[in-house]
Amino acid sequence: MSLKEFISLYLPPFERILERKIEGKGELQEALRYALFPGGKRFRPLLVMASTYAVDGKVEDSLETAVAIELIHNFTLVHDDLPCMDNDDFRRGKPTLHKKFGEGMAVLVGDALFNLAFQTLSLAPLPADKKEKIFQLISSSLGIGGVIEGQVMDIHMGKEEENLEKLKKIYSLKTGALIKASVLCGGVIGNATEEELSLLRAYGENLGLAFQIMDDVREAEEGKEPPYPDFPALLGIEEARNRGREYGNKAIEAILPFGERGRILKEMVEWVIR
Amino acid sequence: MSLKEFISLYLPPFERILERKIEGKGELQEALRYALFPGGKRFRPLLVMASTYAVDGKVEDSLETAVAIELIHNFTLVHDDLPCMDNDDFRRGKPTLHKKFGEGMAVLVGDALFNLAFQTLSLAPLPADKKEKIFQLISSSLGIGGVIEGQVMDIHMGKEEENLEKLKKIYSLKTGALIKASVLCGGVIGNATEEELSLLRAYGENLGLAFQIMDDVREAEEGKEPPYPDFPALLGIEEARNRGREYGNKAIEAILPFGERGRILKEMVEWVIR
Repeated sequence: MSLKEFISLYLPPFERILERKIEGKGELQEALRYALFPGGKRFRPLLVMASTYAVDGKVEDSLETAVAIELIHNFTLVHDDLPCMDNDDFRRGKPTLHKKFGEGMAVLVGDALFNLAFQTLSLAPLPADKKEKIFQLISSSLGIGGVIEGQVMDIHMGKEEENLEKLKKIYSLKTGALIKASVLCGGVIGNATEEELSLLRAYGENLGLAFQIMDDVREAEEGKEPPYPDFPALLGIEEARNRGREYGNKAIEAILPFGERGRILKEMVEWVIR
Repeated sequence: MSLKEFISLYLPPFERILERKIEGKGELQEALRYALFPGGKRFRPLLVMASTYAVDGKVEDSLETAVAIELIHNFTLVHDDLPCMDNDDFRRGKPTLHKKFGEGMAVLVGDALFNLAFQTLSLAPLPADKKEKIFQLISSSLGIGGVIEGQVMDIHMGKEEENLEKLKKIYSLKTGALIKASVLCGGVIGNATEEELSLLRAYGENLGLAFQIMDDVREAEEGKEPPYPDFPALLGIEEARNRGREYGNKAIEAILPFGERGRILKEMVEWVIR
């Protein structure tokens, strides 16, 4: 199966579950829908599902966890866009949530998205011991040593001279941690062995770096000024792109043992680095 | 055992677990400690523990869940105090977190407290099926139909004429939902029967209303202007206090069947209404 076929098969049921989680009347529900639809690439939920597929699990079992990961991703975006954080006015071609609903609502909508992620997981049709493992994986990827610590580093960046090692660390936390958790959750759902989990871990770590560097490269090409010196600013666009591709190729190498079942994960890397 | 003895027995181990969750160096950890210590009355975690005690469970088993509930309570306080929400400058006699660390940090610290609550639960020494139930109870008390929906109502209050029914609804959501979840979690940990859980539910619902109304009464007595007409403003201080006591007495009645084991829960109501 190709990534394209995989997407057309599994993204529709994913979207249906996501929609059902926020149906109903009310300003909160309306604002939640505004945050989630129309969505982005749904990259992280696809990673969850593709990892379950790679270890020969049932992709259907991973849908709720994929929804939870997408909710968490959007929670981080809504809070990140706030005036006291990145102060962004637009996201996915429309006004950011605080521009449309006000700052107080944006704080609450982020909180509600985060909570809904945990609620979705708690109600998922999975055995309790798998849920426990997934709760551990996700929560440990977000706090100290994860996404939120990366964001704390982020708001302090640019105050002193930056270097590649520090950038790598911040990328691993603010972007890489959730990407890694996504692939590990997919593995756990599909009953991955310890060895398979460590392949997925290596894949996720390298993909996280590739993802963030290629994102920087794209923004540099569009002439966007980074908030602090990033890979393209420190290395030049060409060399930054090479680094991104290197990490991408390492991610692809990591999952070679999965053979044909790893094809979706491989094509997701190619989607990022090309 | 009296409430005083219960507190001196179980609050110290609770505090130790809470401290261990945020030890270590770093600005995030420092800000987390600022949010949590010195603490308030630790009312909600005591409810968790007292409910486990009331159904004859092992109070030691409830410590991590009590910590998680306290983390969630403090997450809501940090976000509530933000300028775009209640805009409070002081809490527990010191500058609010955003006054001390900045607004961006306050958003992130709230998020980190929330996440740490779920991480604490996910790692708690409890059977996976109990954790699953606790995750369901807590997450369903926070989102749509819970605390966050109450806060959304809260930011719109005062724009039209208020009435007691609407106030009751908002109190049940923004304050009552987490109080009810606290007692139900305590019950689940102590292997409560369905019947015991419904006694605890009735207790929690009435206590939540009593708690918020008596809080309003205290603020009215101090001469504080409410952000929108509340129970004392609509009924006068005396009548509001009577209503608060009525709800408190209903809470006490609900747990009469627990007999002597319900004494801590009873004294906690008396703490609120006297």
